[in-house]
Amino acid sequence: MKSYKIAFLGFGNVGRSLAELLIRKRQEIIDDYDVSFSVSGICTKNHGCILINDDLDIDDVMNKIKVDPDIDLNTLTGLPFITDPVEFIHQCNADVLFENTPVNYDTGEPAVGFIKTALNSGIHVVTANKGPVVHAYHELSQIANLNGVKFYFESTVMDGAPIFSLFREALPVINVRRIKGVLNSTTNLILSRIEMGDSFDEAIKYAQSIGIAETDPSGDIDGWDASVKIAELATVLMGIRVKPQDVIRKGIRDLKVDQIRNARESGKRWKLVCSATREYNQVSVSVSPELVDAGSPLFLIDGTTSIVVFESDVLGKLSIIEEDPGPHTTAYGCLADFINIIRN
Amino acid sequence: MKSYKIAFLGFGNVGRSLAELLIRKRQEIIDDYDVSFSVSGICTKNHGCILINDDLDIDDVMNKIKVDPDIDLNTLTGLPFITDPVEFIHQCNADVLFENTPVNYDTGEPAVGFIKTALNSGIHVVTANKGPVVHAYHELSQIANLNGVKFYFESTVMDGAPIFSLFREALPVINVRRIKGVLNSTTNLILSRIEMGDSFDEAIKYAQSIGIAETDPSGDIDGWDASVKIAELATVLMGIRVKPQDVIRKGIRDLKVDQIRNARESGKRWKLVCSATREYNQVSVSVSPELVDAGSPLFLIDGTTSIVVFESDVLGKLSIIEEDPGPHTTAYGCLADFINIIRN
Repeated sequence: MKSYKIAFLGFGNVGRSLAELLIRKRQEIIDDYDVSFSVSGICTKNHGCILINDDLDIDDVMNKIKVDPDIDLNTLTGLPFITDPVEFIHQCNADVLFENTPVNYDTGEPAVGFIKTALNSGIHVVTANKGPVVHAYHELSQIANLNGVKFYFESTVMDGAPIFSLFREALPVINVRRIKGVLNSTTNLILSRIEMGDSFDEAIKYAQSIGIAETDPSGDIDGWDASVKIAELATVLMGIRVKPQDVIRKGIRDLKVDQIRNARESGKRWKLVCSATREYNQVSVSVSPELVDAGSPLFLIDGTTSIVVFESDVLGKLSIIEEDPGPHTTAYGCLADFINIIRN
Repeated sequence: MKSYKIAFLGFGNVGRSLAELLIRKRQEIIDDYDVSFSVSGICTKNHGCILINDDLDIDDVMNKIKVDPDIDLNTLTGLPFITDPVEFIHQCNADVLFENTPVNYDTGEPAVGFIKTALNSGIHVVTANKGPVVHAYHELSQIANLNGVKFYFESTVMDGAPIFSLFREALPVINVRRIKGVLNSTTNLILSRIEMGDSFDEAIKYAQSIGIAETDPSGDIDGWDASVKIAELATVLMGIRVKPQDVIRKGIRDLKVDQIRNARESGKRWKLVCSATREYNQVSVSVSPELVDAGSPLFLIDGTTSIVVFESDVLGKLSIIEEDPGPHTTAYGCLADFINIIRN
């Protein structure tokens, strides 16, 4: 049985859910793939770092975090500690790094730098962070190839539902001609709430109250999050280079409440639709509110459910729908990436 | 560059579409996987066999079939020919056999025997034939393992949309708790036509006229085709043994035309729903007409579109929808299987 050392850079909701899932699935991973793992370090921004050469007792760490979610990880070992993530990566002695630091939509940094450091040190990287993928996919993939390691990011677009692994494995020699999707939960929830009678502000407050929308929801409402996701899909699956800033982008801010309700009453719905379409040698990428007919699978997408529809040269329209996402499904995408790395 | 010899057992719509697709994708397969292929034989029931030791010029064969779809393949070479499929398998000298003989819902034979012969001869097998999978999956997989070859069958349930490869690769250590789907085109089309005003008989005639329903449509209408598909999904993805005969089965024959139209008018639809549900250590598998709400993704499935919804221990509901299937998408599933065999 082969054993892998893993390290966590960033240990928020996703990192902790992933640790719990790894513990829960430890025996199944051994049974199915003859592979075990141990944890060699955890690095957080606000709650300290753990870096040990011996195996970290991750079960024990998780139990202590459950008792005190704000515990300083440094107090868990008597060892000298590191605060610089780059130094952490150099010293963590891991085979696989789970990079789950906060997303930076503008540049992808500092995560791009962290991932480069890891890949250049011969460490496989799994991330749920959209920033480095949309800003540096081609460069990071090349660095990974040069170093004989993998750079996987299944959880960056649809919370763990299989998208990138689908094309990497299940759909060989396919040429994607069009991608269409509803990929931003906040705007989708807001539109549904307005249909049901909320004002725009009430709908935003509701989305904030259940933890979907941020304090400043403009990244969602103005279509930035959706632009990052469709730019990433186009970049990875259609082989082009497109930055979120290049996406023809229109959010839901200018939609009128009456417009949204009238559409619903006449059997249609406004949805914030992401599209990437190949025409001749160009790919046009856009995010824009669209009036969707009742016959479209996009029509049914409510709240936090996501859909992506692929058109290609070999299959009819292929749609993937994920319902009820959360940190645990994002964590599963990271786990799937980990297993797909170690079994190859 | 590695080269593989392939042979076709059965060369109807799917086999011919597959040959065309292989020709069209030949260069992409070389570019992406550094693998080439040549054809060592074609065996049909009614149009003769070709079996040669040198490479068959498949482009030339396909061109001649285009000119005369009923051409006897024996006339294409001057070589002595074989009519027995088992002898063909023994002598075809192939690395990969595409088994696409007609389905036998009751026993899976004679395809089960053909596939056993091939696997025992060290030949990988790809099939679009549901019969051998639903009747002999566990046995055939074991024989494949013992012989160090693969037995793949992506196209048997959803015409080439990724299902089995999804679970084999993209979704590791997942435990499927429930599978639900609309998987039979004929009944789905008939129900849609009745909603729009057809009588039962008119709807059947329409389905026959566009080549979806067979002359005797009872296999579809009484739920046998759907039973085979859900039994296969449960067998492969939930690790149980269930025969089509074991499925709790109710077709659409007893639905009244008024019942179907009234449901539609009140915003619901009757669909022939396949289900497999794990409860404790048992899996119950059924096919039955169900009244589906407008909020369900099953509601939108029209005509030849299929959907399958998976519930599991690690993701929210995950749905796959395939629109516009045909022999070319079934052929793509076989091609994907072929590539997944040769690249491993």
